Amino acid sequence: MGIDTCEQLVVYLRGDSPLSRAEGFEAQSRVALWRDGAPVLGTVHMVHPGLLAIDEIGLSEPAWRALGGADGALVHIARTPQANSFSTVREKIDGGAIGTGAARAIVGDIVAGAYTDIEMAALITACAGERMDVDETVALTRAMVDVGARLAWGTGTVVDKHCIGGLPGNRTSLLVVPIVAACGLTIPKTSSRAISSPAGTADTMETLAPVDLDPAAMRRVVGREGGCIAWGGAVSPSPADEPLIRVERPLGLASAGLLVASVLSKKIAAGATHVLIDFPVGPSAKLRSEQAAGAMLERFRGVGRELGIAVHAVVTDGRQPVGRGIGPALEAFDVLAVLRNAPGAPADLRERGLLLAGAVLEMGGKAAPGQGLALARATLASGAAWRKFEAICDAQGGMREPPRAAFTHAVEALRGGRVAAIDNRALAQLAKLAGAPRAAAAGILFQAPLGANVGVGQPLFTIHANSQGELACALAFARAHQQLVTIGDF
Amino acid sequence: MGIDTCEQLVVYLRGDSPLSRAEGFEAQSRVALWRDGAPVLGTVHMVHPGLLAIDEIGLSEPAWRALGGADGALVHIARTPQANSFSTVREKIDGGAIGTGAARAIVGDIVAGAYTDIEMAALITACAGERMDVDETVALTRAMVDVGARLAWGTGTVVDKHCIGGLPGNRTSLLVVPIVAACGLTIPKTSSRAISSPAGTADTMETLAPVDLDPAAMRRVVGREGGCIAWGGAVSPSPADEPLIRVERPLGLASAGLLVASVLSKKIAAGATHVLIDFPVGPSAKLRSEQAAGAMLERFRGVGRELGIAVHAVVTDGRQPVGRGIGPALEAFDVLAVLRNAPGAPADLRERGLLLAGAVLEMGGKAAPGQGLALARATLASGAAWRKFEAICDAQGGMREPPRAAFTHAVEALRGGRVAAIDNRALAQLAKLAGAPRAAAAGILFQAPLGANVGVGQPLFTIHANSQGELACALAFARAHQQLVTIGDF
Repeated sequence: MGIDTCEQLVVYLRGDSPLSRAEGFEAQSRVALWRDGAPVLGTVHMVHPGLLAIDEIGLSEPAWRALGGADGALVHIARTPQANSFSTVREKIDGGAIGTGAARAIVGDIVAGAYTDIEMAALITACAGERMDVDETVALTRAMVDVGARLAWGTGTVVDKHCIGGLPGNRTSLLVVPIVAACGLTIPKTSSRAISSPAGTADTMETLAPVDLDPAAMRRVVGREGGCIAWGGAVSPSPADEPLIRVERPLGLASAGLLVASVLSKKIAAGATHVLIDFPVGPSAKLRSEQAAGAMLERFRGVGRELGIAVHAVVTDGRQPVGRGIGPALEAFDVLAVLRNAPGAPADLRERGLLLAGAVLEMGGKAAPGQGLALARATLASGAAWRKFEAICDAQGGMREPPRAAFTHAVEALRGGRVAAIDNRALAQLAKLAGAPRAAAAGILFQAPLGANVGVGQPLFTIHANSQGELACALAFARAHQQLVTIGDF
Repeated sequence: MGIDTCEQLVVYLRGDSPLSRAEGFEAQSRVALWRDGAPVLGTVHMVHPGLLAIDEIGLSEPAWRALGGADGALVHIARTPQANSFSTVREKIDGGAIGTGAARAIVGDIVAGAYTDIEMAALITACAGERMDVDETVALTRAMVDVGARLAWGTGTVVDKHCIGGLPGNRTSLLVVPIVAACGLTIPKTSSRAISSPAGTADTMETLAPVDLDPAAMRRVVGREGGCIAWGGAVSPSPADEPLIRVERPLGLASAGLLVASVLSKKIAAGATHVLIDFPVGPSAKLRSEQAAGAMLERFRGVGRELGIAVHAVVTDGRQPVGRGIGPALEAFDVLAVLRNAPGAPADLRERGLLLAGAVLEMGGKAAPGQGLALARATLASGAAWRKFEAICDAQGGMREPPRAAFTHAVEALRGGRVAAIDNRALAQLAKLAGAPRAAAAGILFQAPLGANVGVGQPLFTIHANSQGELACALAFARAHQQLVTIGDF
C-alpha cells in the first residue's frame, strides 16, 4: 500500500468484499497470511473502494517485507487463533508461577507472532521488578535458548561481556573486544540496539562498520580475527527477545527475570562459556546500590549455574556518564580517541575499558589473577588493540567515518561553581529528544564531569540534532530541567 | 483516507514532507492534532508519495470523526508529551499504592487519550485480581466520577441495578426497569455493551429500541416514563471507563478494584442513590463461590459508603445460562416472551427478574421487607410491566423487531442421558465465534438446561450466524469442546 507502520504488520482489506463478509473480518481482526512458507500475523484495517480492488489484499511495508510480497501474488488468509499460552500469563498475574512447559509455550507463541502488544505488556508487567523467581527465570532462559539457533565455536573457552545499562556513553565493549581478541581470546560479541537509552553498542558500532552480520558472516569474522561486534538481531540467536524489548522499551518497565533471561539466553545462544557482567551503580543508574547489584548478580549466577555458563561480575562507578559523547556517533568518536591513544582521549572511558578487559583476560585464562589490567594496558598502548579494531571493522565490511549533526547548540552554566551532581536519566532523555539513537549523529557532548569547576557562561554540554524541531524540543527540556547538572559552591 | 481502523486513531503523513523532516516524525510517533477545539491524539503511519500531497495530512475514519474533519481544513500538529502519570503506574507495579492525586492524574491522562494501549495494559495488569485496596478504589472511583458529567434527577430516591456478568443470557434489566418504573420508582438505567460476553444489556436493548440517548434525551425519557435503558457510552457519564474496557476486553483480565470503580462511578454519575447488585455464583460464572461474592460485596459497600451511595446485593444461581437465547437478538426474544406473559416464556429468566425487581422495590421503599416479590409478580402479570416497556421503547425512539440470523445449525446429543453440567464460559465463547455481539442476530439458542433428559440426536443448542465462515468456525469449536454440555446417566 505504500504505508510505513514501523514494526506493525497491517493487512488492508475491503470491508465490502465477499471475503470480509464470509469470514466476518473487521477492523482490528487478527489474521494470518501466507503464500508457500510460514504465516505472517497481522492486524486488519478496512479500506473503502478506490484504494483496493474487490479481490485484492493490501499490506503495510513491514508486512510486505515479512511476507516477501510480490504484486499480484496469490495469498491465503485466515483468522488467527488466540495465543493459547496467555492463559498461563493470567495464572501468573493471579499469583501462580511460570513452569517449564508454560515458558516454552509462551516463548513459542511470542516467536510465532501470536501475542498482541497488549498481551506482551501484561506479561512484562506480571514479571516486572522481582516478580520472577530463579526457577521461572531458568525455565524462560532455557525456552529462549531452545527456540533459536545456537552458535558453536569449536574452541574450549569463549568469552563475552555485558553491561547492565543505564549509564550514558558507557561504550566499553568497543575497547574490550579488540583488546582481548588481540591477546588471543575468542569473543564473538553480539550487541543490542538501544532499548531505553540514547545508544546501544550496536548503534555506536554501526557508525564505524556494518553490524548486520548473518551467522555465516559472523563465523568468518570471528574465525579470522577472534572477535566481532555484531547486532544480535541480525544473527538472531534469541528470536523471542526482540518482540519483548519492542514493548518493554516504550513502557520503561524493568524486570529482573526478563533481563537475566534476555542476557543469558543471548550469551548462551552465541556460544559463550564465560561471561563478565558490568554493574554500574549510582543514584541515577539502573542499579542504585551495591546491594541491588549483589541481588542481581546472585540471580545471574543461579541461572548461569543451571544452564552451564560461568558468570563473573565487576561493580563500577555509575554516578555519571562515561566519556564525553552520548548518542551513537558522539560515543564512537570517544572510542576512536581511546583506541588511537589520542591526546585528550577520555581517561574515564579508557580506564573502565582496561578494567573490564583485564577481568575478561583473567576470566579467559590469558592472565593470572591480578595481572589482567597490566596486559590490557600494554595491548592498548602498543597499538595492537587499534590494529585489531581496524581489522575487525574491515572483516565486518569496511570501516567508516561516523556522521556529524546538522545543528548544535551549547547549554551554558547560569552560575559558577563546582559540578556536584548529574542526573544520568534526564541526560539520556535529553539525548533521545535530540533524536538519538534513530539519528546516529544526534545526542549530547557532555563537558561538565563531577567535580569540575565551571564559570558562568561556560558550556555544560552541547546538544547535537539533525532537525531544528528536535533541537528545539531538546533545548526546551534542558531549560525545564535545571537538575541535569547541579552546580555547587567552589 | 477511507481507512477504518476500528477505534485506533491513525494520522497518515508523507515521510518525505518538510513537516516530517523538521519535526522528526516517524512511523508510530504519537502526535496531537487540532483545529479550533480540543486536540485529538493519534499514531503516525507514513505514506509514500501518491497517497497524499506533500502538504496534506490523512486521517483514519475514527480520527476523522474525532477531529470533526473536513476536506481541505487547516490542522495543527505537534508531538504529544508522554502520559506523565504513567510514572505512578510504574510505582504501583513496584509495590506502591495509587493515591488520590495519582488517581486523578491517571484518569485525566486516560480521558485525554495520552495513554497508549500497552500503558493501559500495564495499568490493568498492575491492578488485576485483588491488587487494589479499598482506599485506592475509592480514589479511582472519585476521580472517574469527577472527570465526567453528572446527572441529577431532582427526586429523593433514584434506584439502579447492576449484574456482575459472566452468565450468558442473564438479561434481567429489561424486566426490572419496566416493573419498578411501573410501580413509580425512578430508574435511569445506563448499560454497557458487551465487555467479554456475547451480549451486553445495551446490545440486547438495541435490537428492540435505540439506546444511543444523549443526556437531554435520557432526561426526557425518564421524565416521562420514570425509567430508561440507555447505552452508558452515549450518555458518557464516565469517559475514563470506555478506554479501559477497550483494553481489558481482549486481555480477559479481571480486576476487583477496576470493576468496582467502573460500576460505581457510572451509577453515581447517573445520579443513583441506591444500587442493587446481582452476584451470580457458579463454577464457570465470573464469581465462583459465595465467599468470592462476599469479598466483592464488602469492597462495593466500602467504596459506596465513602462516596455516598447505598449498595444492596442479591446472590443468585450462576450455574447455567438464563433463558434460552445467548446473543443480543436471541436474548431479546426471551425478554419479550416474559414481558408478554407468553406461554412457554423461560421461567428461570422470569423468576430471576421478579426476584431482583422485588429487591429493588424494597430498596426503593415501594414495598415493605418481604413484600417486593409479590408486588413485582402482580405488576408483570397485570400487563403493566409490558405496557411500561412499550412506552419506554417508544420514548427512546420507537420499538422495533430484533433481527434473525441468516444461517442456523443445531448441535445434537451424541448420547442419551441427563444434563449434568454446563460450561458457561465455553458457551459464551461459542456465541462470540458465531458473531455475537457484533452481529446482533448471532449467538446460541440453548435447549438443554441442567437436569433435562435428552435422547440421542436431540438438539442441545442451535448456532445462529450471519456468515457461513462464522458458522463453520463456531461449529468446529463446538465439536472440539464436548464439555460444553456434559450428559450423565438418566
